[in-house]
Amino acid sequence: MITRGDCLALDAADDFADRRALFDLPDGVIYLDGNSLGALPHAVKAAVANCVETQWGRDLISSWNRAGWIDLPARVGAKIAPLIGAQPDEVIACDSTSVNLFKLAAAALKLRPGRKVVLTEPGNFPSDLYVLQGLTEMFGDVDLRVVAAQDLATALDEDVALLVLTHSHYKTGRLHDMAALTAHTHSVGALTLWDLSHSAGSMPVDLNGCQADLAVGCGYKFLNGGPGAPAYLYVARRHHAGFRSPLTGWMGHADPFAFRDDYEGGAGVKQALSGTPSVLSMVALEAALGTFEGVDMAALKTKADRLGDMFLDLVEQRCGGMGFGVACPRVGRGSQVSFRHADAYPIMQALIARGVIGDFRAPDILRFGMTPLYVGFADVWDAVEVLGGVMERGDWWDERFQVRGAVT
Amino acid sequence: MITRGDCLALDAADDFADRRALFDLPDGVIYLDGNSLGALPHAVKAAVANCVETQWGRDLISSWNRAGWIDLPARVGAKIAPLIGAQPDEVIACDSTSVNLFKLAAAALKLRPGRKVVLTEPGNFPSDLYVLQGLTEMFGDVDLRVVAAQDLATALDEDVALLVLTHSHYKTGRLHDMAALTAHTHSVGALTLWDLSHSAGSMPVDLNGCQADLAVGCGYKFLNGGPGAPAYLYVARRHHAGFRSPLTGWMGHADPFAFRDDYEGGAGVKQALSGTPSVLSMVALEAALGTFEGVDMAALKTKADRLGDMFLDLVEQRCGGMGFGVACPRVGRGSQVSFRHADAYPIMQALIARGVIGDFRAPDILRFGMTPLYVGFADVWDAVEVLGGVMERGDWWDERFQVRGAVT
Repeated sequence: MITRGDCLALDAADDFADRRALFDLPDGVIYLDGNSLGALPHAVKAAVANCVETQWGRDLISSWNRAGWIDLPARVGAKIAPLIGAQPDEVIACDSTSVNLFKLAAAALKLRPGRKVVLTEPGNFPSDLYVLQGLTEMFGDVDLRVVAAQDLATALDEDVALLVLTHSHYKTGRLHDMAALTAHTHSVGALTLWDLSHSAGSMPVDLNGCQADLAVGCGYKFLNGGPGAPAYLYVARRHHAGFRSPLTGWMGHADPFAFRDDYEGGAGVKQALSGTPSVLSMVALEAALGTFEGVDMAALKTKADRLGDMFLDLVEQRCGGMGFGVACPRVGRGSQVSFRHADAYPIMQALIARGVIGDFRAPDILRFGMTPLYVGFADVWDAVEVLGGVMERGDWWDERFQVRGAVT
Repeated sequence: MITRGDCLALDAADDFADRRALFDLPDGVIYLDGNSLGALPHAVKAAVANCVETQWGRDLISSWNRAGWIDLPARVGAKIAPLIGAQPDEVIACDSTSVNLFKLAAAALKLRPGRKVVLTEPGNFPSDLYVLQGLTEMFGDVDLRVVAAQDLATALDEDVALLVLTHSHYKTGRLHDMAALTAHTHSVGALTLWDLSHSAGSMPVDLNGCQADLAVGCGYKFLNGGPGAPAYLYVARRHHAGFRSPLTGWMGHADPFAFRDDYEGGAGVKQALSGTPSVLSMVALEAALGTFEGVDMAALKTKADRLGDMFLDLVEQRCGGMGFGVACPRVGRGSQVSFRHADAYPIMQALIARGVIGDFRAPDILRFGMTPLYVGFADVWDAVEVLGGVMERGDWWDERFQVRGAVT
């Protein structure tokens, strides 16, 4: 039997326990949805207020230089780089994950002319699938090949220009073997594009070590950059010379303030910038990244795995026979757990009403993300205890939870 | 002779004089760069702080519903619609102007299959030219035809799918005749895409009345939405059925939270959404738009024209023979004036150092934007007086203003 005391003892021994104090976490809430929207780092409040009131309000246009707004995309990218195993000049923050995926997938097709297939798997993050559908439809002569994970190796042939996968699956947390899949992709002459949205910030990612070609990721999940935070993209240095983004906006120009008529792409990832970046959101993300200073990502991953294992063990102990099926791997998992249940939606609503915030993913998944910077073992204990109570009492059957379709 | 007293009398009679109090304007500064970055509306400070601290910090993921984040793009779009002569369901706020231009230009090519020319003019806003270059290069079989303004009518033929123009020229303020050019474009079966970045918010724009097809615009110039504010786009209702954005992200899906594998575009302009919007920036823009409540845009344009005329008259009166050439039209002008001067760059640096904030546009343009909601006639007087002093004393010749290339 695992006891709450065991969890408290693990929290007491947690090297990251002091990081929790860097975040606003509301009283009475156990927040297990940081893989959808990360919690607010305290430092963001002052940074955003300063950006609004002083940089914008007082210094106005001069802040492009004086406050370094013009360098924000590169500066924020360089701060993300060590979290994902990249060099500072290989990463830049800009636009949304979806728009960045479009840019990089289009650029990959130009880097592999003559190859007319983009490969991915069914059930990949929907926006990634959608963007690839829109892109291939726009090109007309490019096919999107959608192949189950276990058949990807076989499907990789010399027609393939690009393999697009999400590192940690958004629903199940399943991790792809980035090194092995990248090596295999290179063996047929194709490129890889990794979506790091559900892994970066919760574990070490080693893009350089895996020789990954391209990557994108989200700023508002484990990076805690705030709702709709800017995303980022990575282009391996060896591809910089041939890299050509189709979204050739002025911020990606070699000399944007020359206001010349002809586009000339900036060096490296700078060329992937398009329009003017959202400064307020960029400033929030930059401040949020400060919470990672000095963090040993491998140790963070160890904690994340233990949190997830604890969640799975406790659900087995407390909620056995209540209809939950484990929907995530025991090993090789991002910082989240998922369960299948026929009544997943109303159960999650009942949990949320009782201050345990996870989320529902259609059709039948309860998903709990554990941001290892601010979630502890007693949180997991308490969350499972609430879940057990909800199930025993049948709270979730309450009619007010029968309305389906809300955003969770 | 115009006197400062004349200007003060005009300010006293100005129907918009009370709007100035809605904005933070720093002491000792005459801000004539609102066409590059609008000033901070007071209401933005509380709205952003509330978004950060309460909506994000306390309510976390539930704010997508509780605070209406999910509706922000449509809600902000509907608030912009009356400023540009559009219906609320024809406008949506999202991404950057550059990204939106890419979406709409690509969609226009799909709406006019078989036509392989996009027409624009040289010296158009650089990012617009760059995006069109990237787009046509990506398509491969589409040509960008760049033709001087006076030859556009001749260049419009049945090969043209789309005419892309900026309503008010960023450098000179010259206004295109939207109604006449749109009618002529339609007469050859092509579509129009208007960039409203330098007109919307300073004058009435009548997209519906002109039967314009498509438009984009910027949130951070005359709309005062803050640095890098979200942009917006317009698709005339008659094109909604055939409209197909190439950037098919999850927010544009008919049912984004179903997380299905197949993309199905949402109705109308909703489909033009791509990734998750930048909520902090969207909230700032929404609050900023409150400053337009109850504003008669035609009367605002009258004030803007008078401010510009006053600026031109006063430069003639105070700075005659100092080497300035008028670089904007007397009639048919956006809310800005421009002057050519061989030493435009150091002169503008000297002005800025003395609290008169305009900007320099290469190679030789001094540009002064007058946001009619918060700029008055005495501001114009004082600005020109500073300019006269700078020229008389040769302040601009000071060596510290000789360093070129800074962002202004």
